[in-house]
Amino acid sequence: MPEVIFQYEAGGLIQVTANAGDILLDVARAANVPIDAPCSGNGACGKCRVRVLEGELDSLPSQHISDAELAEGWRLACGSRIAGDVTVLVPDIASAYQSRMKTADLSSGEEVEIFAKLMTDVKGAGVDFSNDFESVRLEMDVPTLDDTRPDNERLTDALCATLGVEQVEISFPCMCRLAQVLREDDFRVYVSGLRKGDSFIALDISALDEPMCTVAIDIGTTTVSAVLSDLKTGKLLAKASSGNGQIRYGADVINRIVEQTRPGGRERLQKAVIHETVNPVLSALCKSAGVEPRRILRLAVAGNTTMNHLFVGVSAESVRMEPYMPSFFHWDGLRAGDLGLTANSAARVVLAPNIGSYVGGDITAGTLAGLLWDRDEFTLFIDLGTNGELVFGNRDFMISCACSAGPAFEGGDISCGMRATDGAIEGVKLDTSSMEPDFSIIGEAGQKPVGLCGSGIIDLISELYRVGAISSKGHFAREGRRIAYDKHGSGRYILAFPEESETGREISLNEVDIDSFIRAKGAIFSAIDTMLKSLDMDVSMIDHVLVAGGIGSGIDMKNAINIGMFPDIELEKYAYIGNSSLAGAYAISLSEHAEEKTVTLAANMTYLELSTYPGYMDAFVAACFLPHTDISLFPHSVQEA
Amino acid sequence: MPEVIFQYEAGGLIQVTANAGDILLDVARAANVPIDAPCSGNGACGKCRVRVLEGELDSLPSQHISDAELAEGWRLACGSRIAGDVTVLVPDIASAYQSRMKTADLSSGEEVEIFAKLMTDVKGAGVDFSNDFESVRLEMDVPTLDDTRPDNERLTDALCATLGVEQVEISFPCMCRLAQVLREDDFRVYVSGLRKGDSFIALDISALDEPMCTVAIDIGTTTVSAVLSDLKTGKLLAKASSGNGQIRYGADVINRIVEQTRPGGRERLQKAVIHETVNPVLSALCKSAGVEPRRILRLAVAGNTTMNHLFVGVSAESVRMEPYMPSFFHWDGLRAGDLGLTANSAARVVLAPNIGSYVGGDITAGTLAGLLWDRDEFTLFIDLGTNGELVFGNRDFMISCACSAGPAFEGGDISCGMRATDGAIEGVKLDTSSMEPDFSIIGEAGQKPVGLCGSGIIDLISELYRVGAISSKGHFAREGRRIAYDKHGSGRYILAFPEESETGREISLNEVDIDSFIRAKGAIFSAIDTMLKSLDMDVSMIDHVLVAGGIGSGIDMKNAINIGMFPDIELEKYAYIGNSSLAGAYAISLSEHAEEKTVTLAANMTYLELSTYPGYMDAFVAACFLPHTDISLFPHSVQEA
Repeated sequence: MPEVIFQYEAGGLIQVTANAGDILLDVARAANVPIDAPCSGNGACGKCRVRVLEGELDSLPSQHISDAELAEGWRLACGSRIAGDVTVLVPDIASAYQSRMKTADLSSGEEVEIFAKLMTDVKGAGVDFSNDFESVRLEMDVPTLDDTRPDNERLTDALCATLGVEQVEISFPCMCRLAQVLREDDFRVYVSGLRKGDSFIALDISALDEPMCTVAIDIGTTTVSAVLSDLKTGKLLAKASSGNGQIRYGADVINRIVEQTRPGGRERLQKAVIHETVNPVLSALCKSAGVEPRRILRLAVAGNTTMNHLFVGVSAESVRMEPYMPSFFHWDGLRAGDLGLTANSAARVVLAPNIGSYVGGDITAGTLAGLLWDRDEFTLFIDLGTNGELVFGNRDFMISCACSAGPAFEGGDISCGMRATDGAIEGVKLDTSSMEPDFSIIGEAGQKPVGLCGSGIIDLISELYRVGAISSKGHFAREGRRIAYDKHGSGRYILAFPEESETGREISLNEVDIDSFIRAKGAIFSAIDTMLKSLDMDVSMIDHVLVAGGIGSGIDMKNAINIGMFPDIELEKYAYIGNSSLAGAYAISLSEHAEEKTVTLAANMTYLELSTYPGYMDAFVAACFLPHTDISLFPHSVQEA
Repeated sequence: MPEVIFQYEAGGLIQVTANAGDILLDVARAANVPIDAPCSGNGACGKCRVRVLEGELDSLPSQHISDAELAEGWRLACGSRIAGDVTVLVPDIASAYQSRMKTADLSSGEEVEIFAKLMTDVKGAGVDFSNDFESVRLEMDVPTLDDTRPDNERLTDALCATLGVEQVEISFPCMCRLAQVLREDDFRVYVSGLRKGDSFIALDISALDEPMCTVAIDIGTTTVSAVLSDLKTGKLLAKASSGNGQIRYGADVINRIVEQTRPGGRERLQKAVIHETVNPVLSALCKSAGVEPRRILRLAVAGNTTMNHLFVGVSAESVRMEPYMPSFFHWDGLRAGDLGLTANSAARVVLAPNIGSYVGGDITAGTLAGLLWDRDEFTLFIDLGTNGELVFGNRDFMISCACSAGPAFEGGDISCGMRATDGAIEGVKLDTSSMEPDFSIIGEAGQKPVGLCGSGIIDLISELYRVGAISSKGHFAREGRRIAYDKHGSGRYILAFPEESETGREISLNEVDIDSFIRAKGAIFSAIDTMLKSLDMDVSMIDHVLVAGGIGSGIDMKNAINIGMFPDIELEKYAYIGNSSLAGAYAISLSEHAEEKTVTLAANMTYLELSTYPGYMDAFVAACFLPHTDISLFPHSVQEA
């Protein structure tokens, strides 16, 4: 049988045997080799590039591989079959989703400020951030031949006396440590746990006074972010994020669900998110904050409906099948030990509730943080992640929907697209006459560009439209040094020539990319439009627009309006609120009151199923122009040249 | 570094590298090679024999290895250091503890009859065997676009309506299966769970009507036995047993505790009992009964104090240190998922309560089954396992103690001793004049003897004493074909010459063995004597004697009295009741009432710490004769020749 060697650009290799005729991407997945395949292997995205170093592959031609690249050995893993022994290079760009674990600096930064402000606002809206966790110092009598109470009875007696409770439940993780810890300092200990009326549940015991901790986790389809904080004070102790290891099974939730239905799929996807993603994040948080995982006594998880189903290990198949109903909206019964999370095994894991198949816990948690439920004015909440979700309303009502915007806002489905990480072009300006670009790049000074993230794509399309380089339909209409046309007359704008880029590959935006993006922004705008129409309202009635999600703080609202993505209302009404899902989860991680509030607001939220809603398809088609077929909706959109 | 190959006699090998100077037994333990070492490697027991096939070992001389055996390559693993590459044969006799997993025939057999009778008696004593587990058939509406309740709400509504409960808790394992099972047969399912007042905990869901099951496990220091039964009818569905994988860390609880305190010891011992012993037993039970492990909805575990501590993963160190107090007597808070048991992860695991460091759940469960608590007459309950434990009393009071009888009753510490499995000589008679033996062997017809189990040792010593071959002190005093003396004048009785035995090795009982056994039987008798004296009572006041434990049904009470092990009272008062720990656990596995009863009787049991009790040591020394220094205590003991 042929031997396949995956050589990582960053060093290291994995060697496996395969059958002749196997598709290389499948071989890589089976071997857990991280190759990015947002389109799940249908040849569309061009992201799964590998380079043959030795041997041969039986590959289909691809529009994503130029003749020169073909000569250099570049192939798409999804379009290549094993023909014999082969060694391929897995480039870093392909494994970029792994986006090296990041632990963030908590002392400053725009995101931290946004986070802090949201929490101040949530508290201001009356959410009680206190909780019933208690840590208590106990000094017990040392056992003697006359006092041979076993450890658990001795502890129970001391807790009853000190806390004034009548019942004590000693959890499994506490029981396992009891004998040892009691004897570390002569039966003087700290016990941490949860008071419930007349009883106390002891969750952890230690000889030292260690902080009680809580973790909030936002499980995004693409990225998992988490914060560790002090359970009593709410002080942030650490923040970390990582790519969601499930991405090798497809960039969007549909591909993940399809993978889940295959034999062993549920276990594979759960392992990818828990053991390869969340647990390393939890370990990084604990290491960064200098606490033991057993000190994590509560967890809150916010993720879209599919993500929280896959996280728990529940089939998400019904999410994508009529009547589009998940297995649970709100379910309470999960402990960290059930999933093998790197935390106190008796810690409750609170899942932010879903309200529909495509509006999940990330949105209800985000709504908690966005305070829509506390205002008289009308707020439009837009979460731009791997998909787009909207909530609109005020203290009297809320309505919510999801639209199939796809992964374009995170750089998916765009040939040179990437996530908003180091090397991403996040802002672009063009000179009106020469069309030469001026761009800003995420990363340290001197960083060369790698690709375009969502905010950069919005800027570039807006600028190309403004300078007249592209038409309302997104077709190229000007000539210039940075505009090239292929033999079919399809144009592209070259933002960086090969020598200008980090990877030595051209960074450009072509008509296929622009078309993809126009459909994505059209989906967002038409969803806003349809949702408001369903209420007999229009955009003029919006008082606030909160933009959240992975598109990043670099988003230029003016440009987003210019291309017809967001409603053309006063710029002052817009605010970027960062990762509102994580912010909401943080509130829930600290407080049962925040948890109850989220359950209540979720129960009161109406879910609008757009895919079957009359008029939505027409609205969508009308929005697939720059800025819109009905230009009167966008009086401030400009085309200068 | 030297390579060490362990070649199993039964086939297969394990190859590891080691350091020169390492002790072979340690290398074997690190590599998980099962070599029996009841004395935990101090050279005393001679059980860890291996045979060098290639290479050399640096070995100490041993009384257990004859010159001829030495020449053949036999060595003690505990007395041999690595000197270079070596291949050793690991004989089956050494790995006998693994005692191939046994699933028993339930249709007949003495043990099954004993078991059934015990249960009838327990029920007769008023223990209610019913429980609140319920399995219910539900037919739900299929979801439509107008009825988009998620699965868990749909199930909750159906359970509330059908069972008339107000609250439903869907456990994690049930939630994980929900989506899939609901769709297997159009939302027609069976749900199994536990009713608690107004609420119902759903533990499992299935499309078919499967039995709800419960498992009772007796975790012995040497052997683990378990029964799987129908949770509603109590019908036995399967029975299985296996050697306790911890035995490689020592035959007795003290050696296990010592091992536990070493780095990683707790994990190693827990893994040995759970993953290498209990889980394979659970799998065997399920396979034999044709049920899925998720159908095990409740478990009851009975084991001595050390065993249940190691099982849970709690340090047992305090058991062996003054004031000899375990970490728990009664602790309730364990789920199968906490330990990764092969069962429904939400199933409660009920531990039979301990009452002292050396009187544990096996004895309280055994006492439940023995019905001491229900009788006006006085019952003496004797559990002969790897140690000896006693309970005495009636419905008004019970007192209990443990004695350091060691593993002799299970064949430990005896050079040709073995457990009561295939090849064990379980009964012996000697011709008074010729001293030729007539013995019975466990196993199929034609089975040659391998060694002596506890009942066989009792018989042989009793017979040797009766025929005058040994003195009251256990010294050989006659000549004959089957009696040999070494150069120091120390004798042995040869039960089987090499050509008569299964292994080709002589089976004999020497003076060291007899001395060990006399100390063991002396410990039992002096404990009985001391316990009765502490109550100002004597043996004449005993109405019933129940003998339980691994010594086996082959025990001859007359011989046990003859050697002064049991009190010299009417033979009709004696009964062998088999594995009473497992019988008690079986009752607990079925019934909360039996569970409560056990907790109550444990709480009312007095624990007598013999090791510090005045007069015990004198009583012990006085009992270390055949039958006793005070021969008036044993009027029926006979010495014919």
